[in-house]
Amino acid sequence: MESRRGFIRNTALATAALQVGAVSNIFAKSNTSKGKKGKMKLSFMPYTLELAHVFTLATSSRTSTPDVLTKIEFDGLVGYGEASMPPYLGESIESVCSFLSKVDLSQFNDPTEMEKILDYVDNIAPLNKAAKAAVDIALHDLVGKIIGQPWWKIWGYDTGKMPDTSYTIGIDKPNVVRQKTKEAAPYKILKVKLGRDTDKELIETIRSVTDKPICVDVNQGWTDRNFAVEMAHWLSEKGVVFIEQGMPKERVEDNAYLTEHSPIPTFADESFQRLPDVIKCHGVYSGINIKLMKSTGLREGHRMLELARALNMKIMIGCMTETSCGISAAAQLAPMVDYADLDGNLLIKNDAFSGMKIVDGKVTLNDKPGIGAIPTKTLKFP
Amino acid sequence: MESRRGFIRNTALATAALQVGAVSNIFAKSNTSKGKKGKMKLSFMPYTLELAHVFTLATSSRTSTPDVLTKIEFDGLVGYGEASMPPYLGESIESVCSFLSKVDLSQFNDPTEMEKILDYVDNIAPLNKAAKAAVDIALHDLVGKIIGQPWWKIWGYDTGKMPDTSYTIGIDKPNVVRQKTKEAAPYKILKVKLGRDTDKELIETIRSVTDKPICVDVNQGWTDRNFAVEMAHWLSEKGVVFIEQGMPKERVEDNAYLTEHSPIPTFADESFQRLPDVIKCHGVYSGINIKLMKSTGLREGHRMLELARALNMKIMIGCMTETSCGISAAAQLAPMVDYADLDGNLLIKNDAFSGMKIVDGKVTLNDKPGIGAIPTKTLKFP
Repeated sequence: MESRRGFIRNTALATAALQVGAVSNIFAKSNTSKGKKGKMKLSFMPYTLELAHVFTLATSSRTSTPDVLTKIEFDGLVGYGEASMPPYLGESIESVCSFLSKVDLSQFNDPTEMEKILDYVDNIAPLNKAAKAAVDIALHDLVGKIIGQPWWKIWGYDTGKMPDTSYTIGIDKPNVVRQKTKEAAPYKILKVKLGRDTDKELIETIRSVTDKPICVDVNQGWTDRNFAVEMAHWLSEKGVVFIEQGMPKERVEDNAYLTEHSPIPTFADESFQRLPDVIKCHGVYSGINIKLMKSTGLREGHRMLELARALNMKIMIGCMTETSCGISAAAQLAPMVDYADLDGNLLIKNDAFSGMKIVDGKVTLNDKPGIGAIPTKTLKFP
Repeated sequence: MESRRGFIRNTALATAALQVGAVSNIFAKSNTSKGKKGKMKLSFMPYTLELAHVFTLATSSRTSTPDVLTKIEFDGLVGYGEASMPPYLGESIESVCSFLSKVDLSQFNDPTEMEKILDYVDNIAPLNKAAKAAVDIALHDLVGKIIGQPWWKIWGYDTGKMPDTSYTIGIDKPNVVRQKTKEAAPYKILKVKLGRDTDKELIETIRSVTDKPICVDVNQGWTDRNFAVEMAHWLSEKGVVFIEQGMPKERVEDNAYLTEHSPIPTFADESFQRLPDVIKCHGVYSGINIKLMKSTGLREGHRMLELARALNMKIMIGCMTETSCGISAAAQLAPMVDYADLDGNLLIKNDAFSGMKIVDGKVTLNDKPGIGAIPTKTLKFP
């Protein structure tokens, strides 16, 4: 325990070193020349995701998401990973490539030493969660292939209990919302972003077309707790099944008040990033939304899931805009969650992998070892 | 979640059914005739452990421990497990064989569906923790062999961080205690049971021979919390590194008081059995003692460990008198614990397995798939 704390102290120096200097010359390169059996080799390449539709949030809109693909080679096997960096999370292609260039996996000769390897990666620098996830996911893919099993099997999960995945209906004019709702026929749960003056109108518009369960993501949009509780009751009457991040994350007591007085569960999203946050969210929210790009990947994501289950919290597995690589990794946890929100790969035009599928509205895992994601095009890693 | 609660309700009926009827005719038999590929077959046999020395507790002494060995066969592979039943835990060869005879694994055709299989086993009847552990351990051994890896590797643990294991010095006359302390030369930590009038004398006797760290198991023996705190300070000055179960388990506030005022960590033992108890012990004790015969095996034991780590609690892995089968299973968790107390196999004359070894005082794992325990004699399962 003490040695770990010492390690964390020492990384302050590493971090300072990392923040110095230009990063342009380290883009898209392999960080070790050793690719032979017995050594792991990490490679990475920027891969900008082209969005199928303009993505609109309350404060911005964009047509692409910065992304970096990774691979780890060892003994003839290849594991793939990914970092997705929606701008509001504070990472970029530059920061991810800078971080990955510091990761020296050639010092390890056994990929199954995941605790040791990922402790090392986590201690290279603080933050950099998507970059860490990109190593974690590729390592899980590699180790699953070494073991010869998908991770949901290694964890012993039961694919007979897969959750429905929600499909997001974007904010738009009523006739477009009605059309999109009809197009979402294969999905059993709809998701909408709230936090505008037109929230009730949006819900009513969807309800004019379907009585499917709806979940709402408020993105911290409610600022008055009595208003929030009133909305929770109104939404519950309209068949909304849960509320994600109703009030600003720093207002812990208000969020706890909402959870206590809401007839439907509340989920932490912005309030929730890494493992110790599970404990902080316990009693404040009904559940958590696990996203690999915030959890630093599957190892900590899996621990969050098991911890939240032990605390009788509800669990959602979510995603960013990602290829089927990151989505398939996240889907390995799906057998144990209450809700899945894994449609990030459906929002891009240039997916580079095939893997987890949504079949009849349900997350459906394949039997392939590792994370179950297979490249669908030639990926020119340097 | 709801369906699981329904499942628990339904098992009340199964439990009632189980408590009826004689059990003598179900000893030592296989509970399914299907042993062919594609079906799992569970077999079990009583195996009484002969103690090398008479085992003395405050209230009793005995020369043997009832034990049942299990095996699960599937597709030419065999996984071994064990239930050890020291009398004070409320299970017996009769109750374990009765429980195991109800376990029908032939309904599952994939051993890797561990969550589903062990949920089913857990819901056959309440309690029966050692019996459930016997299935869980054999299933882990089998699945590890299917996957081709030991569980410490599947969990990604780092065997570079193995704990010392403690060696118990029995309560005896000073000259015998001095002799036993000298014989314990290979061990880096000594353990003694306290809770008698002669506690201080026992510690002083050991200190007359060695300055090795000592840990003490009070077995709920302290009844006054001020006396307990005073003893904790005295023991700390004598180089004692932790206190296990200082006060009676039902006196939660007194144990919390001791933990708050003790200069050395406190561990829950009798207070601690299954996963929800980790949360109950948080804030009351510094740490927990995980024993597979109380946790229902490795699956829940592993979850306890991960939960306790997330809560920043200290962790010890303990055991009953067991063969190297149960001990080797428990040792899979050892890379992630603060202390190991895994000497149960050294206390018996008729160990039936070889596996985990204590080398230079440290728990040392082998690379064999599963739990790493190999029978050293012919085991005549029916």
